[in-house]
Amino acid sequence: MKAVLILSGGLDSTVLLYDLLSRGYSVHALTFNYGQRHSREIESAVAITLNLVDSGAHVLHRVIDLRNISKYLGDSALLGGQIVPECHYTEAAAKQTVVPNRNMIMLAVAAGYAEANFIPEVYYAAHAGDWAIYPDCRKDFTEQMAEAIKLATSWNPVELKTPFVSLTKDLIVKRGIELKVPFELTWSCYNGGAVPCGKCPTCVERIEAFEKNGAIDPCLK
Amino acid sequence: MKAVLILSGGLDSTVLLYDLLSRGYSVHALTFNYGQRHSREIESAVAITLNLVDSGAHVLHRVIDLRNISKYLGDSALLGGQIVPECHYTEAAAKQTVVPNRNMIMLAVAAGYAEANFIPEVYYAAHAGDWAIYPDCRKDFTEQMAEAIKLATSWNPVELKTPFVSLTKDLIVKRGIELKVPFELTWSCYNGGAVPCGKCPTCVERIEAFEKNGAIDPCLK
Repeated sequence: MKAVLILSGGLDSTVLLYDLLSRGYSVHALTFNYGQRHSREIESAVAITLNLVDSGAHVLHRVIDLRNISKYLGDSALLGGQIVPECHYTEAAAKQTVVPNRNMIMLAVAAGYAEANFIPEVYYAAHAGDWAIYPDCRKDFTEQMAEAIKLATSWNPVELKTPFVSLTKDLIVKRGIELKVPFELTWSCYNGGAVPCGKCPTCVERIEAFEKNGAIDPCLK
Repeated sequence: MKAVLILSGGLDSTVLLYDLLSRGYSVHALTFNYGQRHSREIESAVAITLNLVDSGAHVLHRVIDLRNISKYLGDSALLGGQIVPECHYTEAAAKQTVVPNRNMIMLAVAAGYAEANFIPEVYYAAHAGDWAIYPDCRKDFTEQMAEAIKLATSWNPVELKTPFVSLTKDLIVKRGIELKVPFELTWSCYNGGAVPCGKCPTCVERIEAFEKNGAIDPCLK
């Protein structure tokens, strides 16, 4: 069985990668370079997949360059256009860090890649924390998108799967602990640097998710 | 009023561009370089918009480079991977010329562009000839995609509009004649060269559409 996975190098998509491998999938992991503020996340995706390939796992990793597109998508903090906020996730903070329609673009490319390579499933690690805030992580969006992808790819049907869409981050961390995910290789922080800032919305969410599991994020040790 | 339009340089999207301008829109026309077999279509889009700008029309033209993506999308005849078929449109011919999920990718990028620039509408010239054949030109697909775009862009809502989706090509030619579209600047043929081949599916469809209007395609004169 083959699957395409959108792998950001963050915690959620890495746990999903390990989950797919544990279920016997060969995974084509696609990481998108959309001109992120820093390349730390992409480097993490490379380290995660290299580590897996070295241990014999069936992972093919591709980094797809979207910078020719994202230069038209405004001044999000994630593209370096604004200051990264320091707080819990709020709608205002999310609006500073959103890249317009980024997730739909990545899903459309992943579906085209899957169709061209006769791979029947695309996995996307949107989760219940994300979809409370970002419109293109919400369940109603992913359901519509799944239907649109099904129609567009009807010659080689591709199904969009979002198994984490109703899970909160602490449950994803729990699953990752069970799967022995090397969390120290993942990167979630919106800022670059040697260690996570611990202050941006995604750091705050991640710290709390580990705490709920009675664990400490190894990236912060 | 502002609108984003996906402008291929072909007949349908050029008629739609003239239609939007006649209704008072300022148009951001986006042309995608997806590694087409030849650059003739893109050159046409440039010639069409230059001609309009020279006459004072409100058009901003951008060519967006998708070649970093399309290299992962297989060996379609449109990307130079197969021989262009010579016949009427059939499902077999369409399958040789389809670029997997190309239209969804272009629509997702156009929607992101519109959202980032606070433009409320994206126009797409899918028409009744196309949707009989290509899955991602059909009305059921464009309706689903419109809904997905609406959800994904809910912070700056973007609406997908497909005014030609139920029109056959001869009716689009009729509208173009009324609008005095310079058809000689457009390019539909799947092959490059100085003049259209007159044999590929899109040439055959176009010749017949002019004939039904008692006209001759100026590209063939």
